[in-house]
Amino acid sequence: MKERAARAIAECRHIAKMSEEPDRITRRYLTVPVRDVHALLRGRMEKLGMTVSVDAVGNLRGAWRPAGVHGPRVILGSHIDTVPDAGAFDGVLGVAIALELAELAQQFERPLAIEVIAFSEEEGARFGAPFIGSRAVAGRFDAALLELKDADGVTLENVIRAFGLDPARVSQAALGEEALAYFETHIEQGPVLEAEGLPVAAVTSIAGQSRFSLRWIGRSGHAGTTPMHLRRDALAGAAEFITAVETRARHTEGLVATVGKLELEPNAGNVIPGVVRMALEVRHGEDFVRNEAVKELLAQARSIAGRRNLQLESTLGLDQPAVPMDERLTAVLAGAIEAAGLPAKRMPSGAGHDAMVMAARVPAAMLFVRSPGGISHHPEETVLEEDVGAAIRAGREFLSRLAAGVS
Amino acid sequence: MKERAARAIAECRHIAKMSEEPDRITRRYLTVPVRDVHALLRGRMEKLGMTVSVDAVGNLRGAWRPAGVHGPRVILGSHIDTVPDAGAFDGVLGVAIALELAELAQQFERPLAIEVIAFSEEEGARFGAPFIGSRAVAGRFDAALLELKDADGVTLENVIRAFGLDPARVSQAALGEEALAYFETHIEQGPVLEAEGLPVAAVTSIAGQSRFSLRWIGRSGHAGTTPMHLRRDALAGAAEFITAVETRARHTEGLVATVGKLELEPNAGNVIPGVVRMALEVRHGEDFVRNEAVKELLAQARSIAGRRNLQLESTLGLDQPAVPMDERLTAVLAGAIEAAGLPAKRMPSGAGHDAMVMAARVPAAMLFVRSPGGISHHPEETVLEEDVGAAIRAGREFLSRLAAGVS
Repeated sequence: MKERAARAIAECRHIAKMSEEPDRITRRYLTVPVRDVHALLRGRMEKLGMTVSVDAVGNLRGAWRPAGVHGPRVILGSHIDTVPDAGAFDGVLGVAIALELAELAQQFERPLAIEVIAFSEEEGARFGAPFIGSRAVAGRFDAALLELKDADGVTLENVIRAFGLDPARVSQAALGEEALAYFETHIEQGPVLEAEGLPVAAVTSIAGQSRFSLRWIGRSGHAGTTPMHLRRDALAGAAEFITAVETRARHTEGLVATVGKLELEPNAGNVIPGVVRMALEVRHGEDFVRNEAVKELLAQARSIAGRRNLQLESTLGLDQPAVPMDERLTAVLAGAIEAAGLPAKRMPSGAGHDAMVMAARVPAAMLFVRSPGGISHHPEETVLEEDVGAAIRAGREFLSRLAAGVS
Repeated sequence: MKERAARAIAECRHIAKMSEEPDRITRRYLTVPVRDVHALLRGRMEKLGMTVSVDAVGNLRGAWRPAGVHGPRVILGSHIDTVPDAGAFDGVLGVAIALELAELAQQFERPLAIEVIAFSEEEGARFGAPFIGSRAVAGRFDAALLELKDADGVTLENVIRAFGLDPARVSQAALGEEALAYFETHIEQGPVLEAEGLPVAAVTSIAGQSRFSLRWIGRSGHAGTTPMHLRRDALAGAAEFITAVETRARHTEGLVATVGKLELEPNAGNVIPGVVRMALEVRHGEDFVRNEAVKELLAQARSIAGRRNLQLESTLGLDQPAVPMDERLTAVLAGAIEAAGLPAKRMPSGAGHDAMVMAARVPAAMLFVRSPGGISHHPEETVLEEDVGAAIRAGREFLSRLAAGVS
């Protein structure tokens, strides 16, 4: 396992060099380096005796069906695109581990049909729409997506064509025959496992999220000549709300609420801010907890604005329900983690993943690998070899239990 | 007086068309439209029988000395440069009124030598250094300023040369012979006079100001995957401090404290802010009040940062003491305002003005004119004709009292 872990990590580091930019890892949907990643992974898949294809949204798919096995297959997958200036492991690690698991599964006494999918797009970095790859496989691809344009004004449809694929065939990427399970390994992208000293965890659900854009409108004015009692300072109101957001989230188990983006007008040291635009994001594994928090926070924002004679505009940007992982599969996964000699930590995922999209079509389970420093979407993103080894051990046990029909 | 007020306003509106930009008022130091303003004002000055010159930093100066008068002159001045996208009255109104007052003073029974100065630079918009014009006249021009570069990389020295002036002669712009007084009329740039229903006020002092740049350093992280208790959110700390700044200023008479500028890294809706840079500005007419407030606020910032496990860096950008206007002259001005039939409101100026620089060299007094809506540095900046009339009445009375030697 130690060797397999080292190989998976080396593969991620090698793929990291396949980038749109010379000194940073940036590999957006169907850009040139994706072709190189496909070539590399296709070689690995072919060595495993897989039937390899690229579907119409650019997912690289390797299918392996042992002689005489007719049952539904298990899909192992993750994504190979990245955000700009990314780390080497977000997404790619899940594919590297899937290939190790596929190879291990080929040695099972009870054989198991397997498909490994390297999703072409998950981050949304090129078209602002995430999960392009898994949406197609889950049969949830809306044709309107084809009209999206990237920063250069090229449509998604033409990007697919330029890669040598046929956008008219996107619907053929959808899973046809029944699948037994979808299984994804991904770095945690957060500090929880590190704080608890654990290598892996079974994901219970993908947290739902609400995103709002709030606009606080006061009146700008000269910072030297406007007495405090005559001010309508948009930032002072926004600041009071930011504190309220933090306080609310701190007092609710599992709730995270963040103001990550703030834009001031005019944003000059000697001018009272007249307008502040703010991005508010709230996430929780349970929708009713999140919805209750959002309702209270918006009421608080209105009350702060009213008291300060500010106008407040709020626009809902996203209201995405939580997606639970399959309960039975997650129990199997937790059992597999224990069988691998590790504590079976269960936790929700605060970030979205392909498993969330796939869960609409096939029972899904997901394994988290500790993120040292909680760092992700950053060049310093990394993993520990022993954690990757633990993930491979737990994953093999999980697949072997599926092969054995254990539930 | 009504006609003079209307003429002064019309002159400001006319000069507003002399701009670097077609649809906005932008007239930075020694740019092309300054030449047009000089031509216009030179014509006015010559009609008044003044001796007109442009000194080496580009101040347009018109001197008038009645036959047989040998005493020190009174200097009337203000600036003709603007910030980008300015209003029509900041600075220019003081020059337009100065010309009206000079003409009125020529009719006094007791004659008075007068110099009108249209300062070439006060805002600091081109080189980041304000008061270039008045610094030279006050003999406070540091030769190092000549090496400053504008946004195009052109030095102040070369900008002076390109305007046809000789930077080697800047020291000759300094006042040689003694002056009796410096008098400046300026829009208030704040809402105080409007809130009190008053047209004008005598300025008692130019508030001192402290400017700090604060850098709050936490740790960025995924907004969905980082639980609240493991966050080091730089913005949450900054927000707590912004509230503290407002609270402190609200509880101290005359104190203004402002966070006007905020820059987040990475400033993305789904990422916990890792770094926040903040501009803090504190002003008060009395230095000890300001210094005490600054000391307390910085201590509070350190305490907030410490409690939240954030690093805090603070850099002092400016520590400018308050500059009192000349007490005797201000009393004369207050008397003149009353003699003009108006309440003699006295107030500090929260903004810096040429009078602050000139006060180092000559007794200075300053008259504020109500700013409707408190608006300045904005296209909607305006003045009321009756207020300009009141300023001219009070100004004439003030000069007539100086001519008569009343104190």
